[in-house]
Amino acid sequence: MTDAVLAGQIRHDRGLRSFASDNHAGAHPEVLAALAAANGGHLPSYGDDPYTAAFEELVRDLFGSSATAYPVFNGTGANVAALAMMTDRWDAAICTENAHANVDECGAPEKVAGVKLLPVPTEDGKLTPALVDTKAWGFGFEHHAQPSVLTLTQASELGTVYTAGELTALCDHAHGLGMSVHVDGARLANAAAALGCGLGELTTVVGVDVVSLGGTKNGLLGAEAVVVLNPEAIRAPRYIRKLVTQLPSKMRFVSAQLLALYGTQLWRRSAEQANAMATRLAAAVDGLPGVQLTQPVQANAVFAILDRSAADRIRQRYPFYTWNEATGEVRWMCAFDTAVEDVDAFAACVRAAVEATAGG
Amino acid sequence: MTDAVLAGQIRHDRGLRSFASDNHAGAHPEVLAALAAANGGHLPSYGDDPYTAAFEELVRDLFGSSATAYPVFNGTGANVAALAMMTDRWDAAICTENAHANVDECGAPEKVAGVKLLPVPTEDGKLTPALVDTKAWGFGFEHHAQPSVLTLTQASELGTVYTAGELTALCDHAHGLGMSVHVDGARLANAAAALGCGLGELTTVVGVDVVSLGGTKNGLLGAEAVVVLNPEAIRAPRYIRKLVTQLPSKMRFVSAQLLALYGTQLWRRSAEQANAMATRLAAAVDGLPGVQLTQPVQANAVFAILDRSAADRIRQRYPFYTWNEATGEVRWMCAFDTAVEDVDAFAACVRAAVEATAGG
Amino acid sequence: MTDAVLAGQIRHDRGLRSFASDNHAGAHPEVLAALAAANGGHLPSYGDDPYTAAFEELVRDLFGSSATAYPVFNGTGANVAALAMMTDRWDAAICTENAHANVDECGAPEKVAGVKLLPVPTEDGKLTPALVDTKAWGFGFEHHAQPSVLTLTQASELGTVYTAGELTALCDHAHGLGMSVHVDGARLANAAAALGCGLGELTTVVGVDVVSLGGTKNGLLGAEAVVVLNPEAIRAPRYIRKLVTQLPSKMRFVSAQLLALYGTQLWRRSAEQANAMATRLAAAVDGLPGVQLTQPVQANAVFAILDRSAADRIRQRYPFYTWNEATGEVRWMCAFDTAVEDVDAFAACVRAAVEATAGG
Amino acid sequence: MTDAVLAGQIRHDRGLRSFASDNHAGAHPEVLAALAAANGGHLPSYGDDPYTAAFEELVRDLFGSSATAYPVFNGTGANVAALAMMTDRWDAAICTENAHANVDECGAPEKVAGVKLLPVPTEDGKLTPALVDTKAWGFGFEHHAQPSVLTLTQASELGTVYTAGELTALCDHAHGLGMSVHVDGARLANAAAALGCGLGELTTVVGVDVVSLGGTKNGLLGAEAVVVLNPEAIRAPRYIRKLVTQLPSKMRFVSAQLLALYGTQLWRRSAEQANAMATRLAAAVDGLPGVQLTQPVQANAVFAILDRSAADRIRQRYPFYTWNEATGEVRWMCAFDTAVEDVDAFAACVRAAVEATAGG
Repeated sequence: MTDAVLAGQIRHDRGLRSFASDNHAGAHPEVLAALAAANGGHLPSYGDDPYTAAFEELVRDLFGSSATAYPVFNGTGANVAALAMMTDRWDAAICTENAHANVDECGAPEKVAGVKLLPVPTEDGKLTPALVDTKAWGFGFEHHAQPSVLTLTQASELGTVYTAGELTALCDHAHGLGMSVHVDGARLANAAAALGCGLGELTTVVGVDVVSLGGTKNGLLGAEAVVVLNPEAIRAPRYIRKLVTQLPSKMRFVSAQLLALYGTQLWRRSAEQANAMATRLAAAVDGLPGVQLTQPVQANAVFAILDRSAADRIRQRYPFYTWNEATGEVRWMCAFDTAVEDVDAFAACVRAAVEATAGG
Repeated sequence: MTDAVLAGQIRHDRGLRSFASDNHAGAHPEVLAALAAANGGHLPSYGDDPYTAAFEELVRDLFGSSATAYPVFNGTGANVAALAMMTDRWDAAICTENAHANVDECGAPEKVAGVKLLPVPTEDGKLTPALVDTKAWGFGFEHHAQPSVLTLTQASELGTVYTAGELTALCDHAHGLGMSVHVDGARLANAAAALGCGLGELTTVVGVDVVSLGGTKNGLLGAEAVVVLNPEAIRAPRYIRKLVTQLPSKMRFVSAQLLALYGTQLWRRSAEQANAMATRLAAAVDGLPGVQLTQPVQANAVFAILDRSAADRIRQRYPFYTWNEATGEVRWMCAFDTAVEDVDAFAACVRAAVEATAGG
Repeated sequence: MTDAVLAGQIRHDRGLRSFASDNHAGAHPEVLAALAAANGGHLPSYGDDPYTAAFEELVRDLFGSSATAYPVFNGTGANVAALAMMTDRWDAAICTENAHANVDECGAPEKVAGVKLLPVPTEDGKLTPALVDTKAWGFGFEHHAQPSVLTLTQASELGTVYTAGELTALCDHAHGLGMSVHVDGARLANAAAALGCGLGELTTVVGVDVVSLGGTKNGLLGAEAVVVLNPEAIRAPRYIRKLVTQLPSKMRFVSAQLLALYGTQLWRRSAEQANAMATRLAAAVDGLPGVQLTQPVQANAVFAILDRSAADRIRQRYPFYTWNEATGEVRWMCAFDTAVEDVDAFAACVRAAVEATAGG
Repeated sequence: MTDAVLAGQIRHDRGLRSFASDNHAGAHPEVLAALAAANGGHLPSYGDDPYTAAFEELVRDLFGSSATAYPVFNGTGANVAALAMMTDRWDAAICTENAHANVDECGAPEKVAGVKLLPVPTEDGKLTPALVDTKAWGFGFEHHAQPSVLTLTQASELGTVYTAGELTALCDHAHGLGMSVHVDGARLANAAAALGCGLGELTTVVGVDVVSLGGTKNGLLGAEAVVVLNPEAIRAPRYIRKLVTQLPSKMRFVSAQLLALYGTQLWRRSAEQANAMATRLAAAVDGLPGVQLTQPVQANAVFAILDRSAADRIRQRYPFYTWNEATGEVRWMCAFDTAVEDVDAFAACVRAAVEATAGG
C-alpha cells in the first residue's frame, strides 16, 4: 500500500453501537469539514489565528460581551484550568460527591489545580443552597482551606438538569458567601437543549462566573473551552492554561472544531438528538419487569437498576458501565449519532435479557 | 449560509508563509484523511480502540519490543507526563538552560510534574557528560533534590543534533550515576532525518529510557506520545497521564494522527523537507554582509545575528522570533510544507533587507 | 533592665485556665529540664546526635524492632510528612469528615503531601470497615485517584477511642484491600491511657503501618514524630521530611522533648490526668438542665450542646470553642496540667451559667 | 532513676567543638530562660498570646511600622512560606546557584511553595543587577514562568555580605522590573554585625519586601520568622504559613525565643562573636603553606582550599564540610559560642595537618 492509503486505513467496524458513553461516538462530519477548512498555509500558533478570534467573538455573542474564551483539549483540562484560574493555594471548592472533578479526574483538581474539594452527597447529582451550607464554613479561619468556589455539573453526572431558577438560587447563595460559581459544562448543550433555552440563559444570565464548555461529548474530535463570564472571578488565564499543559500549539484546529459546533445550531441539533434517544430508551424499558429507573431522564443518560445477570446478557452485545457496584445500577448514554433504530434494537435486547433472566 | 457551510468556512489566506515556528504550519493532507478514516461508529474511549492498538504495535516495531506508548495532546503535556512518570517528589532533572522544559513550559515541569530542574548553560544546546557532572551531585543527601533524570532535546532547541555516539556516552554516563534518560523528541524526526537513521537507533539502541515523541511540529494537528523504552524507568504511566490532564477521551483521533505519521514514511519525508529547506536557507544567507549564522544548521532551524533594523524590515513580510534580545539573534524555522520557492523568496527578502540597512 | 532580664521576662498571668485546647497549656517542667540537659557544646545537626539516637532506640522499645522515627515540629507536619511518605501522586486517603487532616490543616494534605482525601461522615469520629468501603473503590481505574491509605485519629477528634479490636478489624480490612493504615496520634497517649495499654498495643500489634506520634498536646513545647512501623508502607522518609519543611536543624532539642515524654512514664501520667479531668468535668455537668453531652467521654474532651447564651456567659471567664455553629455544640478540652480545682471551678461556672440562662 | 532524672539526662560531651555549621551549636542560656518564663498557665495557641504580640511590636520597632511578623519553625520553612506568600503559581524567583533555597532545601521552594527557581552562577554568592538581567526576561509571555521575585541571602552562603548600597541597587532594579525582593536572612544578624548597622538599615531602608529572619543559627533552639516589610508584596500570610505546615501551635515558645534574641542585643553580641572568630581563624590560617582562602571573610564563615589529606587529618578531631568535591574547597563555620581558645586550637590543628601533609 502507498503511504497515503496506509495513513487513511479504516481499522474498525462503523456499525458498532455503544451505550457506554457519549465519547464512544466519533466526530460529526461537519466538524471534519471544519478542520479541512482551517488547514493549509501558515498561521500564528497559540491562539493568534482567525479561527480562535472568530470563536472568541462567538463566545461574546453567546455568553455576553464580557465573556472570554480559552480553548483547551479536554474536559479534565478545562475543569483543572478553570478551577486553577478561580482559586488560590489555600482555597477549596464545593462539589457533589459524584462530580466528575471528584471521582473521574484522578485527583487532578487537587494535585494540579491545587484546590481542595469539599464533596457533598446528593440524591440526584444536584447541589442546593442548603447542601452548600454543609461545607461553606470556616471562612477566615487559617486552619481551614477556604471555600471559595462552587462547582456544579450541568447536565449533571446523573443525567439531571438544573433549571435556571435553581441556578440563580445557587449563584446568589454562593456570591452572598463571597464564593464564585463554576459550571462543568461538558454536557451544557444537553441541558440547554433539554430546557429549550440558550447557553447564556443557563450561565451568564443566572450569575455563573466560569464555564467549562464541552464539545467532545457532543460530536467534536477533542475540543473544549474555559469560558470566563466574570473576569473578576479569575486570574492569569493564559499562564494557568499553559502551565496545566492545556495550551494547544496549532490552536486553529481546536477553535475550528468549537466554531463548527457553536457557530451553528449543530450543538443544539446534536444534543437534542442524544436527549431524545435517552427519553425514547427510558420509555421503552420503563415498566419492564426487573428494570427500575433510578433518576429522572432529563438529558442523554438513563440510569437503571436491573438484575446483574440480565445486565451481563445485554453486555454481550452492547458496552455500558455499571455505575454502582453495590446496587447493580447501570448507566446507558446516548450520543449525537445514536439513531432511533439503535435505541429500539437496544431496548429489545434489554427486554429479551430481563425476560430470559426472569425465565431462567 | 447553511450550518454545514458555516462550519466549514475558510477564514485565512492559505498563501501565508511564516518562518517563526514549525507549528505555524497546518496538517499534512494524509493526516486529515486518517481522521476521516477513524471516524464513524462507536468505539471505546481512552485508548481501548484499534487505532491506539495499532499505534502501540507500531511503536514496538519502531522502538523495540519493550516499548509502550501513551498518546497525549501536546509537547508540554508529553514532557510533563514523561518527567512525572520518571521521578518522585524529591527528584530533580538535569537539562540545558534553553531546554523547552526549562524556558517554554511556564514552569509546568516543576509545578505539575513536581520535578526540580537543574539547568546547565551550553554553547550549542547539547549536554555532555562533563556538563552533566556540574549538576549530578548530592546523591543520598537529604537536603538536596535528587538528580535522577537527564532530559535532553533532540533535535535541540538550537537546531543542533546529537549523534548516536554522543547519546550513547550521555546515556552510559547517566545510567552509571543511577539516573535515567528522557529525550524531548518534539523534533526527533528531524534528527533522524538529518542523521539518516531510524528512530530506534537514536533512542532504544543508545540507551534512552523515555521519549516524548513529537508529531505536531511535523505535520499533525495536535498529537504526541510518551514512548517508554525502559519500563523500569517509570511508574504508573496511566495514572500520571490522566492526572496531568493528558488523557484523550476519543483517543482514536490522536492515535490515528500518530499512525498516519509514523506508520508510513511521512515522518521522514516531512522532516527531510523541513531540514533541507533550513539548509537551503542557511546557504542562501550565509556570507551576506551583516548576517552571521550562530549555530550549525543540522535540522530545520537557522539561527543568525543580523542588524535589528534589517530584522524589522524582514518582519514586515514574514513572522519570526528574536531568540536573544541582548544580541539580536533571530531564529528561522522551516516546516514540512516549506517549499523551495518559499525559502528563495525569504532569502531574497533577507538580502534586500540587509542591503537596504547597509545602504541606509 | 539587662538583656538577660529582658530575655526572660514573664508576660502573662500563669493563673489563666482555658478549656479550649490541650495546646493552650504550656510545657511540663521535666521537658524544660530536658532541653537544658541537651544544651551546651557542639553536636551534629539534622539528627546525627545522641538525643535523636536515644529516641530512635526508645521507639524500637515502644513500637517494636522494625520501628523507625522521624522527629518533626508539629502535628500538621507529622501528618503531611506521613501521608507523603505513604502515597504516590495518584493516591487518595480515606478519613473521617471531621479528621484534623480534613478540616484543620488548610488543605496541606492535598496541597503539600499531594494526596486526595476521601472523607466519610461518621457519628462518633471513628471509621469502620463498612464506612471505609463507601470510598474504597475504583482500584486500578485510571480515572480515579487510588485509595491507598486509611488515616484514622486516635483518640479521635470527637474524644472517642478506638479499641484494639476495632483497630485490628480496620487494619485487616485495609490491608486486604491493598491499603496501608496511618494513625494521627496527636492524642495517642490519651487513648493508651484510657485503655490502660501500651502504645505498641494500639499500633504495631494491631497492624498500623505509620503513626504521627503526638507530643505537643501532651506537655511538650513543640515536638512530634513520624513513627514508621512497617517500612514497606513508605518511601524516602528523609527526603520527604526535608521537603515538607519538617527537618529540624538542631534536632537534639526536638528529640530531647520526645525522650522526656516517652522515655519515662510522663506521657502516661500526663494523659491520665487530662483524661481524668475530662471525666470529672463530664460527670459534673451531665444532667444539668440544658446541658446535653453529645459524645462518650473516652479521652480528654467533653462535647456538649448547651444554650448559646449560657455558653457566652461561660466564655466571659473561660475560653473554649464552638464545635458546630449549626447546633451550638461546644468542645471542652482538658490538658496535662488541668487540676481538680480547675475542673470544679469550671463546672460551677457552667452550672451558674445554665441556671442564670434558665432563670433569665 | 526517677522520671525527672531520666527526662533531664545529659547524653553528650559538652566539650565537643565543631566547625561544620553554626547549627551544631546549642542555645544561648538566655534563650532557655526565656522559655521558662513563657511557660506556665494557659495561653491561646497559634499566636494569640502576649509573647507573640510583643514580638510583633518588636518587629515594628526594628523594621518599621508597616512590618508584620509570622513566627515559624525553621529556615527552610521561612523561605518556603515567604516565597509562597510572594508568588503565584505561574511565577519564578531569581537566586544564586548556591542559594540555600536552590541547593539545600530538597526542592521545597518548587515543590511546596510552587515557585520555579532561576539560578544564576556567581563568584562570591552575591547577585548584581547585571546578573539578575540574565534571568529577568519573558515578562508577559505565557510560555515562560514569570520572574517575579528576587531572593538573595544575607550574609550569603559563601560568607560574603551585601552592603546597603548593593542592596539598594538590587531592590531598585528589581522593583523597576516589577519584581519584589526577598532576603533569606538566616544570618542577617551576622551581616548587620559585620556592617555595624541595624537590621532595618539592611532591609526596610534599602527596599527589601520580605525577610526570612533567622534565629536558629544564632543561638536559638529553633525559631525563625517571616517578616513582611511591604504588605503589598505578599498575599494570605496566615493561610500560607498554615498550609506549608509552619504554624506553631504553642507559638509562645517560638516567639519567646525570638524575643530573647531580638528584644535585646543578644543577636548582635552573638553574631559579633561568631564573625570575630571567623576573622581570627582566617588570619591564623592565611598564608599557611597549602591553604588558600577562597572568599573574603565578611561574616562567620571561612572558605579555603587545602590538600585533601590535610583536611582528612583535621577531620579526625573536628567536623566540617567539604563545600566543593571537585576542588577540595572546605567550609569552616563559627558559632555564637565559638571561643578564642576554640579557634586557636583549631588553627593549630590546621597548621599541624598541613605541615604533616607537606612533610609526608
